[in-house]
Amino acid sequence: MITAAEYVESLKRLKKRQIYLAGELVDDPVAHPIIRPSINAVALTYRLAEMEEHAPLMTATSALTGKRVNRFSHLHQDAHDLIMKVEMQRLLGQLTGSCFQRCVGWDALNALWSTTYEMDQAGGTAYHDRLKAYLAEWEERDWTVAGSMTDPKGNRRLSPSAQADPDLYLHLVERRPEGMVVRGAKAHQTGILNAHEIIVMPTMSLRAEDSNYAVSFALPADSAGLIYIYGRQSCDTRKLEPTRTDVGNINYGGQEALVIFNDVLVPWERVFMCGEWNFASTLVERFSGYHRQSYGGCKAGMGDVLIGAASALAVCHGLEKTSHIKDKLTEMIHLNETLFSCGIACSALGQTTKAGNYLIDQLLANVCKLNVTRFPYEIARLAQDIAGGLLVTLPSDQDFQSPLMGPLLEKYLAGEDAVKTGERQQLLRLVEAMTLGTVAACYLTESMHGAGSPQAQRIMIQRLANLSGKESLARRLAGIDPDGLVYT
Amino acid sequence: MITAAEYVESLKRLKKRQIYLAGELVDDPVAHPIIRPSINAVALTYRLAEMEEHAPLMTATSALTGKRVNRFSHLHQDAHDLIMKVEMQRLLGQLTGSCFQRCVGWDALNALWSTTYEMDQAGGTAYHDRLKAYLAEWEERDWTVAGSMTDPKGNRRLSPSAQADPDLYLHLVERRPEGMVVRGAKAHQTGILNAHEIIVMPTMSLRAEDSNYAVSFALPADSAGLIYIYGRQSCDTRKLEPTRTDVGNINYGGQEALVIFNDVLVPWERVFMCGEWNFASTLVERFSGYHRQSYGGCKAGMGDVLIGAASALAVCHGLEKTSHIKDKLTEMIHLNETLFSCGIACSALGQTTKAGNYLIDQLLANVCKLNVTRFPYEIARLAQDIAGGLLVTLPSDQDFQSPLMGPLLEKYLAGEDAVKTGERQQLLRLVEAMTLGTVAACYLTESMHGAGSPQAQRIMIQRLANLSGKESLARRLAGIDPDGLVYT
Amino acid sequence: MITAAEYVESLKRLKKRQIYLAGELVDDPVAHPIIRPSINAVALTYRLAEMEEHAPLMTATSALTGKRVNRFSHLHQDAHDLIMKVEMQRLLGQLTGSCFQRCVGWDALNALWSTTYEMDQAGGTAYHDRLKAYLAEWEERDWTVAGSMTDPKGNRRLSPSAQADPDLYLHLVERRPEGMVVRGAKAHQTGILNAHEIIVMPTMSLRAEDSNYAVSFALPADSAGLIYIYGRQSCDTRKLEPTRTDVGNINYGGQEALVIFNDVLVPWERVFMCGEWNFASTLVERFSGYHRQSYGGCKAGMGDVLIGAASALAVCHGLEKTSHIKDKLTEMIHLNETLFSCGIACSALGQTTKAGNYLIDQLLANVCKLNVTRFPYEIARLAQDIAGGLLVTLPSDQDFQSPLMGPLLEKYLAGEDAVKTGERQQLLRLVEAMTLGTVAACYLTESMHGAGSPQAQRIMIQRLANLSGKESLARRLAGIDPDGLVYT
Amino acid sequence: MITAAEYVESLKRLKKRQIYLAGELVDDPVAHPIIRPSINAVALTYRLAEMEEHAPLMTATSALTGKRVNRFSHLHQDAHDLIMKVEMQRLLGQLTGSCFQRCVGWDALNALWSTTYEMDQAGGTAYHDRLKAYLAEWEERDWTVAGSMTDPKGNRRLSPSAQADPDLYLHLVERRPEGMVVRGAKAHQTGILNAHEIIVMPTMSLRAEDSNYAVSFALPADSAGLIYIYGRQSCDTRKLEPTRTDVGNINYGGQEALVIFNDVLVPWERVFMCGEWNFASTLVERFSGYHRQSYGGCKAGMGDVLIGAASALAVCHGLEKTSHIKDKLTEMIHLNETLFSCGIACSALGQTTKAGNYLIDQLLANVCKLNVTRFPYEIARLAQDIAGGLLVTLPSDQDFQSPLMGPLLEKYLAGEDAVKTGERQQLLRLVEAMTLGTVAACYLTESMHGAGSPQAQRIMIQRLANLSGKESLARRLAGIDPDGLVYT
Repeated sequence: MITAAEYVESLKRLKKRQIYLAGELVDDPVAHPIIRPSINAVALTYRLAEMEEHAPLMTATSALTGKRVNRFSHLHQDAHDLIMKVEMQRLLGQLTGSCFQRCVGWDALNALWSTTYEMDQAGGTAYHDRLKAYLAEWEERDWTVAGSMTDPKGNRRLSPSAQADPDLYLHLVERRPEGMVVRGAKAHQTGILNAHEIIVMPTMSLRAEDSNYAVSFALPADSAGLIYIYGRQSCDTRKLEPTRTDVGNINYGGQEALVIFNDVLVPWERVFMCGEWNFASTLVERFSGYHRQSYGGCKAGMGDVLIGAASALAVCHGLEKTSHIKDKLTEMIHLNETLFSCGIACSALGQTTKAGNYLIDQLLANVCKLNVTRFPYEIARLAQDIAGGLLVTLPSDQDFQSPLMGPLLEKYLAGEDAVKTGERQQLLRLVEAMTLGTVAACYLTESMHGAGSPQAQRIMIQRLANLSGKESLARRLAGIDPDGLVYT
Repeated sequence: MITAAEYVESLKRLKKRQIYLAGELVDDPVAHPIIRPSINAVALTYRLAEMEEHAPLMTATSALTGKRVNRFSHLHQDAHDLIMKVEMQRLLGQLTGSCFQRCVGWDALNALWSTTYEMDQAGGTAYHDRLKAYLAEWEERDWTVAGSMTDPKGNRRLSPSAQADPDLYLHLVERRPEGMVVRGAKAHQTGILNAHEIIVMPTMSLRAEDSNYAVSFALPADSAGLIYIYGRQSCDTRKLEPTRTDVGNINYGGQEALVIFNDVLVPWERVFMCGEWNFASTLVERFSGYHRQSYGGCKAGMGDVLIGAASALAVCHGLEKTSHIKDKLTEMIHLNETLFSCGIACSALGQTTKAGNYLIDQLLANVCKLNVTRFPYEIARLAQDIAGGLLVTLPSDQDFQSPLMGPLLEKYLAGEDAVKTGERQQLLRLVEAMTLGTVAACYLTESMHGAGSPQAQRIMIQRLANLSGKESLARRLAGIDPDGLVYT
Repeated sequence: MITAAEYVESLKRLKKRQIYLAGELVDDPVAHPIIRPSINAVALTYRLAEMEEHAPLMTATSALTGKRVNRFSHLHQDAHDLIMKVEMQRLLGQLTGSCFQRCVGWDALNALWSTTYEMDQAGGTAYHDRLKAYLAEWEERDWTVAGSMTDPKGNRRLSPSAQADPDLYLHLVERRPEGMVVRGAKAHQTGILNAHEIIVMPTMSLRAEDSNYAVSFALPADSAGLIYIYGRQSCDTRKLEPTRTDVGNINYGGQEALVIFNDVLVPWERVFMCGEWNFASTLVERFSGYHRQSYGGCKAGMGDVLIGAASALAVCHGLEKTSHIKDKLTEMIHLNETLFSCGIACSALGQTTKAGNYLIDQLLANVCKLNVTRFPYEIARLAQDIAGGLLVTLPSDQDFQSPLMGPLLEKYLAGEDAVKTGERQQLLRLVEAMTLGTVAACYLTESMHGAGSPQAQRIMIQRLANLSGKESLARRLAGIDPDGLVYT
Repeated sequence: MITAAEYVESLKRLKKRQIYLAGELVDDPVAHPIIRPSINAVALTYRLAEMEEHAPLMTATSALTGKRVNRFSHLHQDAHDLIMKVEMQRLLGQLTGSCFQRCVGWDALNALWSTTYEMDQAGGTAYHDRLKAYLAEWEERDWTVAGSMTDPKGNRRLSPSAQADPDLYLHLVERRPEGMVVRGAKAHQTGILNAHEIIVMPTMSLRAEDSNYAVSFALPADSAGLIYIYGRQSCDTRKLEPTRTDVGNINYGGQEALVIFNDVLVPWERVFMCGEWNFASTLVERFSGYHRQSYGGCKAGMGDVLIGAASALAVCHGLEKTSHIKDKLTEMIHLNETLFSCGIACSALGQTTKAGNYLIDQLLANVCKLNVTRFPYEIARLAQDIAGGLLVTLPSDQDFQSPLMGPLLEKYLAGEDAVKTGERQQLLRLVEAMTLGTVAACYLTESMHGAGSPQAQRIMIQRLANLSGKESLARRLAGIDPDGLVYT
């Protein structure tokens, strides 16, 4: 395992990449103030693994080698591993107050592990061994691996091959002896600039005519032909301002980019699917299931931060014992723990795959994520209620720092005597960041759309719910079908 | 273990009890048509244990003797046991569509197990050994044991000893050589007429001046001095009508009674607490925690039935593929599985007590129950939406059976061709039963108040949530407290 | 106008009708204990009109004759009339705690008034004058007129003429010189046994092939060929018990019946539509609009009763100053007044029809009703929360009346000292009645399905919302379309 | 009345004010790119009044002079005026997609009109005539008048005079012959830099010891001693960027500032309250009532924009006919129209004050605002659902404008063929602006806290709801109190 410092250094050693942000080529992404907070968040996944108190959660024993590895490259072995995953994600959500970006690749790994095994069994291919070899290197080098699933999609009513532009979904362009060439793009690529490697997967179930779109592979993040365009988020440019307070979450943040694959060559030993369209749905569903579980951890952790900020603001206002404030905090906690419970439940009721790693309960993982598309929004609303209107009328930190305005703000924006005005300002900025600002995308919109939009979860829930079994229960109790169990 | 048939026989062998229903003394409770469905529900906990396919869930290996015992007398040994508990409760909820009444005593047992152990350690008493002896007999005879907690309470603002009438909370009246004499009443006694034994507990935290109210004990359900007054519920007298369809859930039901302890003598070997007021809160919280977990199982099982009934009615109307109907069913399933997830989560994250049995996670058990006070009501609302207005305008089964009206109803209340009018009638009656009728108390009001009303859960959630820890997380991210973890 | 006493007498003078209840022919419906409470509710619409304090709300000046008439036969002339309608309905909901059944016919009248006018203009028919003559008699005799819309419908996917049985929707069977003969049935007929007259309308939009189903007409409730089958509701037979307390709402109730039209002859002067299938949707939408407005009044009135009962129970428990109780009552009031506001708003923004009477705002009337399908359920849930578990475990009134059990119940079910145990019992029975018992159908299920199920409202809201206009607003602000209004 | 152009010119003619933004003194506020959008929004209130089609809504006949005046200075005369107010506010919300800032002063005027009248009657003062003279000038000069209510408040548990710093609430410092001197601050001052005049009011009910805090007055916005500190909001600095698209709402915005009254002299003829602490609650409640009504208009208008943007994005994705999308849009409309209905209802049921102007129904105005604290958040959540994840991952407009990145983005972010990629980008930015960006404060946080935080509404609802009247209704129906109305 490498240290956080080594991780940051390793990013600096990547080949020069084409990264665009605000219309400009980014020269040094590691030092860029808009990008850096997202690197800090990933670095924490390394740093905590170095710490004795967090090592049991942050590391695991490799199923390949028996060595201690960072948990983010671990093949889950049992329900306990899945529970540890959610607990670790909650911890990281608590400590970064943002997305820490290292889950997508990990969830891709576990989904590919069982899918490649089953593909090989069905088709005589050798994808699983390739993946095993890849994982050995990953564990050894303690990579951060991004997972790439979402294509831009164009017209949602049309399948990949039916789009006006065939490139709107990433696809195979050419088979060469040394590898396959792919073209297309992947949108909403979380933390991709902070990754050493990228695992690409198809974005949805496919039919035979879309077989060229059934590709999965890994490649180094600094491969030739990749173009990165940085996604902008609310209040991103506050990170460029002379003082840090107005950023709200002053050290950490998320990262999203659009990645264009401009005829990129992928060596065959890194290809894990090529044309097996009938396995696309299996891969997508397993990946989505793992990733929907993930949100039961990380978003609960971010929720803890927001609840804490609201609670601390209640103290600033002298209202921490007021019944309606306590009631709102209780409701926030209740919703947050309900999220978390769903993450735990889909872990506890999982099952072993044919390939030997462990799979979440699919129905409950989808239930988990569907709650995530709702509750953080309500928690955010309640946080804004407790925070008060100053949340959106507070002058800038430059005013607080000004010799003229500073003392006036200090005087007039004072709260409860024991609390400094500056603390109140900082807490308000954190609530702003999580509900309207720099990390609101992580806490809210990503909760909505990450790991699939809510309708995707509803469709899965419907499909997995065994309605006919429930109908039988009803028919028996209503007297339509016989109840063989009644004694009298 | 005994069979379902033996269970019913054993009830008939109880001494003559003072049971009042509708102002009359009940001569033969086992045969009484209003009472019998609740006996059928308890009997199912015996019957399923006889069946090979259900035995793994319905039975467990006794921690006392190593013998196979009905799970309803099992001391939970680990998280797996707690998960099995919830799964078993869901199964029973599915198969009875009602309360099956055997959980309260079981939850009391597990709560008393650790509490008596700690009381003995603190005070040098010998309650735990008494309980162990009692459990040995319980397991051996495969008793159904009722748990009695809720006192009538009178004026809620006043403590037990401050009430105008000292008997509004059950209390010690006299200590005699052969035992203690108690007086008072317990309300909302679930399934108490179907139990062989009763375990009594105090209803809330107590202070020193209330030490006479700190009593816990077990006694046979046919002890002298007990008076039972049957609680009436919606549509109870439909069970007296000549045909069964209008009952809705035609075989099963719940049971609630008020029990008056009219100077009842309890032998000392069955006393598990007598005056230790400072352990009342421990006992109450542990019992409540176990019982709040229980609801994540049984109510999810009842929810399965109601979802199934609504789904089957959609088929009757030819609407099972209509998008808004599918969407409502999906929402019902989502809410129901969220409930269940919370039950599983508080099981998976439990811990071993000093006495060796296993305790739920208290925070998550309270979160579980708080969701139970909300979601069944929304599931019921959606079921009424799908069922249609006929739910409350359907003529009586006597009209359906009438030679004059029957054919007209058959003709005019037909649905989708393939479905019989009678099936639609029966399904509507089941939905009525669960949302407005004979088992609505089990599915709705008991979900609200059983194992404590929602405010009780909110208070626990607030107390257990570690708000100051969350405030620290916020302070660190906002820059008020140092973040020792940032690399840069 | 007639008095309440005269109204009841007039019912006794109706010809012998075929009314079935519980499989039996009802000899004297006015005296039948299950039916009588619904007659009391209608009678109140007469009684209040006799009282000086209520006359301004309960009566109006006839647009036909200038005489003072009961408002339930009034053609709305302006927004003020529509607001008075809602206010009157709220008052009656408050005073009956149930459905008072006289709105449906009135809403049918106002919908037919403008529709017949437009039909005549379009097709040269003379329906409007027939209706005017009918109204003159109605006003004069102060009739209660039932409105009949909902057909049994069979398979919901198939149109009326495509059903396996052509009678599943009411239709024209034969045209005779003296009138038309119709066959079919109408379900969910509110208060129909308490009406002097019935107005029949088609149940939905029709196409040309369904023209025989496009019939609207009036006929006396005691016409030959009508068969009434009484719909049973939760706890209906408690009205047959020796004491009244357990009924909950002891004097009033609703009434629903299935009515079969067994080749009934309707004289031509009472026919208001016969074959004009293209006007069915206009009639249905206007009727539904008026009736969806109605629910903003009556259900708010019932809500007032339930809020009052919950508040009085909080007093019984000594909890009326407890913050969480106050908060729940406030939420109940908030939801109830939101309902009412929607009823008022669709009245205040209505418009005059070509025929001269006044029409509600259709969009807001549908919004009103859609809220009614949700909020009463939540108000009921909160009422059960405040009421406590005794709501479903309270012994029967026969136990309270028993010399043995009565004193024990008096003692053990006491609440706050100043409140009598009996009052607490009575209030609990009222909350039971409204949420699970005799009037729950009126307050809950009828709120869901009366005046159309929620999906019907959603479809109307979607259709009336002018989405393209809203898209234009967005396009202008986003800079896609020019904003001609900006100064700079 | 003046034109929009004259309005903007008039702002330029104000005396040099001390305005601070981002730590700097603002030299030319009218030209400042962060401030200008808020001026555009106010200017629209003038521009629309110039347009024939909007004049009936935008103007009114002065109750003082009979002349046509801008409605924003009108004394409401009847329910129709109040309804026109809400309709006008909805129109302006639709056309600005932001706060247009001219309501607060207007609501202050109408509240002061009746309060000063009653103060004069009670205390023999002459405030009402002063206000009348002030209004005459206001109407004549067609001023924009800001209303100043909210004090910074410090420790919320302590009253104004009990604060550690007496200046945390604005108060009388000195009475001089020429006027009174005041000190303090007002926070969350909407649009105050765009106003010609300011009306100040106390912020809450006061007691005798706080009489120095009972001050109300008007003064020119460029008076000596006023210091303005601009409040920053999400994404404010995007307005400084070279292109406009990323601002989202490209022309309009809100404005909030902290205003410090540094020993400001107010001439006596502009003083409307000075020491009458017992009238503070009347003034505050009436102002709040009017302002809570206002939100039923403006936020519904903003809701229309957001619904339109979501609908247009559904078209971009080819999903406008998909049932779950239609259902979400229907839900958004439903919630938005419910808001609006509450605004209309509290207008329609208002009453004439002793002073002759018209007052909203207080209970329903509070109900209106309480819904506003909830529904826009849910509408925003649903808009984010429909918009898709690109909402928070879209590259900056500078990337779209870049010759290198532009064509790639055009290619890969295409949607439905008929829609331009740029339109999709612009619509996404508008949804971002309203839910996370430049106008999110207007649509969300201001909906929460403007016109009082939700708890303030709950307290009023509780106080105005007549619980004892509702209890009487329940007691009568339950049989506790006699029901004098039953016929039988």
